[in-house]
Amino acid sequence: MGRNSDARQKILTVAQSLVELRGYSALGVAEICKAAGVPKGSFYYFFESKEALALAVIDERWTAQLRDWTRILNGEGEPLWRLQRLFEHTEESQRAGQRSCGIVAGCLFGNLTLEMSAHTQAVRDRLQQIFEAQVDLVAAVIAEALDRGDVAVADAHQAARSIVAQLEGQVLFAKLYNDTAPLGALWANCLALLGAHAGQDAPAGT
Amino acid sequence: MGRNSDARQKILTVAQSLVELRGYSALGVAEICKAAGVPKGSFYYFFESKEALALAVIDERWTAQLRDWTRILNGEGEPLWRLQRLFEHTEESQRAGQRSCGIVAGCLFGNLTLEMSAHTQAVRDRLQQIFEAQVDLVAAVIAEALDRGDVAVADAHQAARSIVAQLEGQVLFAKLYNDTAPLGALWANCLALLGAHAGQDAPAGT
Repeated sequence: MGRNSDARQKILTVAQSLVELRGYSALGVAEICKAAGVPKGSFYYFFESKEALALAVIDERWTAQLRDWTRILNGEGEPLWRLQRLFEHTEESQRAGQRSCGIVAGCLFGNLTLEMSAHTQAVRDRLQQIFEAQVDLVAAVIAEALDRGDVAVADAHQAARSIVAQLEGQVLFAKLYNDTAPLGALWANCLALLGAHAGQDAPAGT
Repeated sequence: MGRNSDARQKILTVAQSLVELRGYSALGVAEICKAAGVPKGSFYYFFESKEALALAVIDERWTAQLRDWTRILNGEGEPLWRLQRLFEHTEESQRAGQRSCGIVAGCLFGNLTLEMSAHTQAVRDRLQQIFEAQVDLVAAVIAEALDRGDVAVADAHQAARSIVAQLEGQVLFAKLYNDTAPLGALWANCLALLGAHAGQDAPAGT
């Protein structure tokens, strides 16, 4: 197979699955190339290093996730309803991943934060940017909800950070127990963190 | 150096620091032995495998953390006050780690969950037990607070899980930004998650 963009995409797709299943450090370039069915020379034609591949994997995943988050959070409907859709989307994504590969893979960005951020500055910088963008997207929706009097928080940005932290923590549990059930608590917890217990369309049982 | 318990402890101590700094997969047994100043033969005298070492590292850390959590959560004072002490203790621990080695290392159990749990069943089992124990300790305090009418939650165990998830998520951010500031939000968020906004001794600024 030649050095065409198809080979690059094959490497990226295989790397994304392997990083999700086994983490970054445990993987070797030779293994990735073998699984992708491309010669090792092709790898270094497309990627300067394994770290460069990690950044490309992160970027590809974030491009897709940003598209989903923007569609949901900047879309139609009342602000809190859109936040609820975001949690449902997260739960569905993790469940779909579990169906297709047998495990709850968790959040690629969270996984790589805990595995790589302390020793790879370029990756740390990229992950910081991604989490900031996530917090900004959620904060904009909270600011809208604040304007409508739907929530009671002093600082929309800090509240958004707490909600994304809650999401990461529950996704960690989902991964640990290989069970998406913990994600069911996200919406009620979000309402609690936003001081929006009463009067909102909370799901049954909260 | 001989095969004495001192060598075992040296390996354990060095492994704990190295796993914290660089994760598990990136480490080799040879590197650990070199840093600990023990011959490789000693390693396999004390530990059957690198995975066995990981379990020992986890157990040693959990023994210490369980002692701290039990002292704080089962100690004197009103229930919510003890929960607040737990968050202060977490923040202090992360800050102390940052002072001594330059980075916010995060939570060893969370780190290993995201790095290892998908491919190492023994480690996954141990980490599940530890997080269950953490949730049980917090749930017992919440149940006390419920009895006193200090909080308003339907299920102490689920609320405890949400609080530990919040802790893990904020510790992930602290690690990512190498900054313990996100941990300052834990107490206010805990009160919100417990439906205890008003009337509790919340810190200034919340």
